[in-house]
Amino acid sequence: MIKAGIIGASGYVGCELARILSSHGGADLEILSSRRGDGAEYGSIYPHFLKSPYTITETNIEAAADACDVVFIAAPHGVAAGMVSADILKKTRVIDMGADFRLKDPDAYEKWYGLKHPKPELIAEAAYGLTELNRDEIKSARLIANPGCYPTAAALALYPLIAEGAICPQNVVINAMSGVSGAGRDVRESNLFCETNESLKPYGVATHRHTPEIEQTLSLGAPVTVSFAPVLAPISRGILAISTAELSGALTVKDIADIYDKYYTGEFFIRVLPPGEMPQTRWVKGSNFTDIGFALDGRTNRVIICSVIDNMVKGASGQAIANMNIMFGLPERQGLSQFSVFP
Amino acid sequence: MIKAGIIGASGYVGCELARILSSHGGADLEILSSRRGDGAEYGSIYPHFLKSPYTITETNIEAAADACDVVFIAAPHGVAAGMVSADILKKTRVIDMGADFRLKDPDAYEKWYGLKHPKPELIAEAAYGLTELNRDEIKSARLIANPGCYPTAAALALYPLIAEGAICPQNVVINAMSGVSGAGRDVRESNLFCETNESLKPYGVATHRHTPEIEQTLSLGAPVTVSFAPVLAPISRGILAISTAELSGALTVKDIADIYDKYYTGEFFIRVLPPGEMPQTRWVKGSNFTDIGFALDGRTNRVIICSVIDNMVKGASGQAIANMNIMFGLPERQGLSQFSVFP
Amino acid sequence: MIKAGIIGASGYVGCELARILSSHGGADLEILSSRRGDGAEYGSIYPHFLKSPYTITETNIEAAADACDVVFIAAPHGVAAGMVSADILKKTRVIDMGADFRLKDPDAYEKWYGLKHPKPELIAEAAYGLTELNRDEIKSARLIANPGCYPTAAALALYPLIAEGAICPQNVVINAMSGVSGAGRDVRESNLFCETNESLKPYGVATHRHTPEIEQTLSLGAPVTVSFAPVLAPISRGILAISTAELSGALTVKDIADIYDKYYTGEFFIRVLPPGEMPQTRWVKGSNFTDIGFALDGRTNRVIICSVIDNMVKGASGQAIANMNIMFGLPERQGLSQFSVFP
Amino acid sequence: MIKAGIIGASGYVGCELARILSSHGGADLEILSSRRGDGAEYGSIYPHFLKSPYTITETNIEAAADACDVVFIAAPHGVAAGMVSADILKKTRVIDMGADFRLKDPDAYEKWYGLKHPKPELIAEAAYGLTELNRDEIKSARLIANPGCYPTAAALALYPLIAEGAICPQNVVINAMSGVSGAGRDVRESNLFCETNESLKPYGVATHRHTPEIEQTLSLGAPVTVSFAPVLAPISRGILAISTAELSGALTVKDIADIYDKYYTGEFFIRVLPPGEMPQTRWVKGSNFTDIGFALDGRTNRVIICSVIDNMVKGASGQAIANMNIMFGLPERQGLSQFSVFP
Repeated sequence: MIKAGIIGASGYVGCELARILSSHGGADLEILSSRRGDGAEYGSIYPHFLKSPYTITETNIEAAADACDVVFIAAPHGVAAGMVSADILKKTRVIDMGADFRLKDPDAYEKWYGLKHPKPELIAEAAYGLTELNRDEIKSARLIANPGCYPTAAALALYPLIAEGAICPQNVVINAMSGVSGAGRDVRESNLFCETNESLKPYGVATHRHTPEIEQTLSLGAPVTVSFAPVLAPISRGILAISTAELSGALTVKDIADIYDKYYTGEFFIRVLPPGEMPQTRWVKGSNFTDIGFALDGRTNRVIICSVIDNMVKGASGQAIANMNIMFGLPERQGLSQFSVFP
Repeated sequence: MIKAGIIGASGYVGCELARILSSHGGADLEILSSRRGDGAEYGSIYPHFLKSPYTITETNIEAAADACDVVFIAAPHGVAAGMVSADILKKTRVIDMGADFRLKDPDAYEKWYGLKHPKPELIAEAAYGLTELNRDEIKSARLIANPGCYPTAAALALYPLIAEGAICPQNVVINAMSGVSGAGRDVRESNLFCETNESLKPYGVATHRHTPEIEQTLSLGAPVTVSFAPVLAPISRGILAISTAELSGALTVKDIADIYDKYYTGEFFIRVLPPGEMPQTRWVKGSNFTDIGFALDGRTNRVIICSVIDNMVKGASGQAIANMNIMFGLPERQGLSQFSVFP
Repeated sequence: MIKAGIIGASGYVGCELARILSSHGGADLEILSSRRGDGAEYGSIYPHFLKSPYTITETNIEAAADACDVVFIAAPHGVAAGMVSADILKKTRVIDMGADFRLKDPDAYEKWYGLKHPKPELIAEAAYGLTELNRDEIKSARLIANPGCYPTAAALALYPLIAEGAICPQNVVINAMSGVSGAGRDVRESNLFCETNESLKPYGVATHRHTPEIEQTLSLGAPVTVSFAPVLAPISRGILAISTAELSGALTVKDIADIYDKYYTGEFFIRVLPPGEMPQTRWVKGSNFTDIGFALDGRTNRVIICSVIDNMVKGASGQAIANMNIMFGLPERQGLSQFSVFP
Repeated sequence: MIKAGIIGASGYVGCELARILSSHGGADLEILSSRRGDGAEYGSIYPHFLKSPYTITETNIEAAADACDVVFIAAPHGVAAGMVSADILKKTRVIDMGADFRLKDPDAYEKWYGLKHPKPELIAEAAYGLTELNRDEIKSARLIANPGCYPTAAALALYPLIAEGAICPQNVVINAMSGVSGAGRDVRESNLFCETNESLKPYGVATHRHTPEIEQTLSLGAPVTVSFAPVLAPISRGILAISTAELSGALTVKDIADIYDKYYTGEFFIRVLPPGEMPQTRWVKGSNFTDIGFALDGRTNRVIICSVIDNMVKGASGQAIANMNIMFGLPERQGLSQFSVFP
C-alpha cells in the first residue's frame, strides 16, 4: 500500500483528496494535516468523515516526508514552494495542488502571482500533471505540478486542434464558468450564499492567473495567446469552458472529429461527444471525466468547443490521484472508477 | 389610463407583464388571455396573483383590439404574425414579445425559424423595440418587435463600440448565460429541477436564433458577424453576456469609457461601471437596468465586455412596458423605477 | 412627505427598507447610515442602488432623530435599546427592526438574549408591530417593536385558532424553514455558498430566541408553550412555518375555515387558501403577503397549518413600512402593492 | 459474482442502482431494462454513463429472472406486484424499490394507494428492508420490500425511543423535507426548475402514503400514530426529518443518548451526534449514512430528533444494495464505503 499524506486537509481540495483516497484500495492515508490541525477527529472539521479513522494534525512537512511515499500539498501559492526542497524530494514524492510549479518561467510566475518564486531551481524537475498530455514525464517525476482547474478543461479541449494545426494560435477566446468550490473555504463576503446564489459573476477578466498556464500548455511551436474570462456560477462543483477559435483552413466536422479521435480514443477519462452534442457539468460531477463537444460555426469559420469537468475531481484531486497511480505503477483508474453522482 | 391587454398570460413573460402593469399607475390591465384561459381567476394559474382583480380568458385578438389601446402578444413565433393584420393595427397598438417582426429580412426569418413569414408586408412598419437605440421610431409605431433577451444584453454592450469604429466587425465572440425562465413554462424533461440544478448546459451553439438579430442590430454600415454560444445556468432569472472583440486600433481604457459615456450618459436604465469592474446579474434582478463593465486585454488587443440584464424585465416585459410608455407619451420609467430585489 | 432614516443600512434588512422606500411615494429617504458608512454612494455597498440618489453616512441617532419623522433601526440586539431614549422619542418615531422591545418581560429578554435589558422603562410603551393583530396600538405609538420573521409567520397562522379556543394551547409544535438572508450579511463559514447550497440545516432546535416571542403573542388568557425547531434552507428569501396543533374538540374543515374568515377576510395582506391547498414561498417572494393553508389530520385529531412569508418583506422591512404607513395615516398598502417577483 | 438486473433503469432510482453497482466489486450488472429501453447505450439516456458497458433493453421480468441472481424493480406502485410471482421467486431474488410489499395489511395498501393489492399472498413472505432493524429476516428473504425514503429517515430516528418506552406513542409529529429527486424523472410542471427553485412547498400534508409505513414500523406493541407533513425543498438530494415527541417520563439528555448507544453503537451506517449537535443533509449526500441528532425541550417535556439521509442512497438504492449484500453473504458495506461528495 502506498502511504499518502495531505497537507492542507482543512480545505475543499484536501477533503476531496481524503474522500477519494478513503476508498482507493491501493493507498493508505497516513497523515492529514492543516494549520487548523490539532489532533482532533477529521470529522470535527468535515462531519461527512464522522466514523472515518482520520485525525487532523498540525502541518509538518518533514514528518510527512518521513512517513509517506507521497505528499499532496493543497495550499495557497507560495506555500508549497516554501516547503519543498531537494531534501524533501529525496524522502518522498510531492504532488503540489497549487500553482507554484506550473509555470516553467519564474518571471511569469512573479508577474502573474506577484511573488518572487521561492525555489526556481526546482521548477525544471516538476512534471506538469495534465495526465493525458504528459503521462511519461509524470511516471518518473518526484514532483508534480498538478494543473489548475480552468487549464485542465480548456487545454484538453484545444490541445489536439492546436497540435494538428487546425486552428489559428492567435485567435482563441475562452470563457469559462466555475462552481463556487473553486473559491475554496475562505470566509469572504463575496462567497456568502446570498451573494452568489441566483447570480452570475465575471471576475478576473483578462487578468486571471490561469491564463499563462493555458498558453504554456498550448504553445506547441507557435506561441498561443488567449483571451480568458471566467465566471462564478451558483453551483457547488463543475467547470464549463467554451473555447472559440478560428479555423486555419477549410475543415469539416469530420476532420475535427478525426483529430479528437486520434488523440483521445484510448483515453478512458476523456469522452468526446458526437458532433453537435454538447456536454453538461452534471454528467461529470463527482467523477474524473472530461466531456468534450464541438460545433463548427460555418458562417464565421470558427470552431466552438465546450468542455466540462468537475473542478474538484479532474480539476484537482481526481487528476492528482490519477497521477499518483501513474507514479506508483497502479492502474490509472484505481479509485476513480465512479460515474457521476446524478441527480 | 391606457387600456392594456395581454395575449399569452399563462406564460412567464405574460405574468411578468401582469406584475409590472399591476402597479404601473398609468395603465389598466383590461384583458389577460391565453389558450388555457377559461374565465378563472388569474391566481388559479399563478397563485402570487391571488387577491388580484384579474381573470384569464380565452385568446381573442379581435376582442382585445377592440377593448385595448395596446395589446402585448407573448406567444411562440408564428402566432403573433398570424394574429396581427392591418385591420388589427387600425384598432390598437401591438407589442409582439416574440420573434416574428424582429428580423427585417423575411428570408432570414424563414431560414432561422423554419417558417415562411406569415405577414411579410407588416415587417417594414414594425419598430425594433431596443429602447435606447430606437426611441424615435418606437414613439410613432403601431407595431413593436420587442427584442430578444440575448440581443438586448449583447447589442447594448457592443453598439457604441461598433458605431464608433472601435472594434473589428468580423471578430466578435459572444458567450452568454441565461436563467431557466428563458425557456418558458413548457413542460420538458430538460427543464426539470434535477436536470438543470447544479449544472451548466450549452445549447444552440452556433445555431441560436438570436444570432441574426444581434447581427442585424450591430450591422451599421459594415456587416457584423458574431459567433454566439448560449448556456443555460441554474438561476431563475438573469442573463450575462460576455462579448470579446478585437480592437480596431490602439485604444485606451479611457477611450472606451468615453465612448460608453457618449452613448449612455443620459440613459437611466443603462449603468456603465468604472473600468475593470464587472456587473453581476443579482444587481439587476427584478429591475429594468442593463449593467455594463469592460476590460481591455492588452496582451491580445481585445476588449471584453460583460453586460447583465434580467431576462424577464429588460429582456422582455420591462422593456416592452418602457416602449409602451414611450408610445403613449408617459415617462419612460413609469412602473419601472424599482431597484433589484436583493438578496 | 414623511422624512425617513435608516440606521443599519449596510445589512440586508436595511437595504430592503431602502428598496421599498425608494418607490414608496409617500416617504423620502433622508438618511441611510451604518457603521460602515463614510459618505460614499450607497451603490458602492449595494450595486443595485447604482444611480440611486443615496449616500451612506456614519451612524448618528441624534442627527437622524433631528432630521427624520421616523427612524428604522436595523441592528443586532442591544444596539437599538442603547440608542433609543425618551429624548429621541420626543423628536422622532422609531421602528426597531431588532429584538430589543419585542418581549414585554425584561427578565425573559435577559434569559433568551443573554443581556440585561438596557432600557426596561421603554418596553411598556413599545407597540408590537404585528400589523394585523395590533393595528390600534401601532397607530399611536412612538416606538414600534417590529416582529421577528418566524413569529410573524407562525403567530399569524395560529392566532385565530387560539383566540377561538379551537386548539389546545399546550400541544403546539412548530417547524419552520428559512432562507439564508435571515442570517444577515455577516461573514461566517457556515453561511458560505458551498456550506449551505444543496443542504438542509436545523439550528437553534428548542433554543431559538423567537420561541418566547411566539408564545407571548399567542398567550391569550391561557399560556401557550410551543416546541420550535427552525431549519436553514438553500433559498435566499422565504419562510415556511408548519404548525401542528391538537384540536380542542370535534372541529370540521368548515369550522376552521370559518375561524380564519372571521379574522382575516378583510386583511389584504393575508391570503387564506381553500382547505387542503398549501402555500409555497415563491408566491410571496418580494411581496408583503402571508399565505396560509391548513389541513385537518382526522386520524390524530390535529390541524396542520402551513404559512409562508418573505422573511425580508412581511418578516421585516415590508411589515415595518406598513406600520409606518399606519402611524402616519397613509394607506396601509402604500409602497407595498407589488405581487411576487416570479419566477 | 452476483448477477444483478434492474427493471426501471431509466428512472433516478434505477440509475443510482447502476452507479453503485458499477463499482461494487461483488456484483455484475447483467440487465438494465425499462419501458424506454430499446437496446441503446445506457449513456444515451444518462450521459454520465457514457463509456460504461451498459445497454438498456425492454423490460422482461422472465428474462431477468432467468439471467440474474437478484432483480431490483424500480417502478410505480402496482407494477412490481404485477410482475413478481411464486415462479419468479423460485428463479431469482427480488428487491422491490417501490411500495407494493411494504404494508403488511392489504387493506391499508388499498386505502392509501387506491389500488387492490395484486398479490396479497406474497406480502407475508416479503421482508421489510430497513436494514438495521430487520437484518435477520432480510438474510433469508427471497423478496425484499425496500423502505420508503421518509420512513427510513423517520423510523430510524424514533425506533429506539419507542422500543424503550421513552416517548408517548400517540403524540408524535414528523415534518420532513425532501430534495426534488424524490419526485422522480416524471415530466410535470410542478417539477420544473422555475417552479421549485427558490421555494419551499408542503405537499401531501396529513395524507402522504409513507404515513402508514412509518406507523407500521414503530407500532411495537402499542399502536403509534403520527402526524406527517412533507415539504419539497430546492435541493437535488437529501431528506431531513424532524420528529417531535412527548417524553413518557423525566428523561435526561444522557438517558436519550444511552438509548441510541444501545441500539446503534455497532451500526456503521448510523451516526448519532453528540447531544445538541444537529445533522445536515450535505454530510450524507452520496453516502449510505443516516445521521441523527437530538435535543431535549425541557420547557415542553419533548424530545426533538433530526435525522438526515440521502434519499437516493440510504433512502433507496444504497439501502437496497446493503440488503443485497446481506442476502448474498457479502460484507454489508461492500460498494457503499464512500463518504459524502462534499461540497
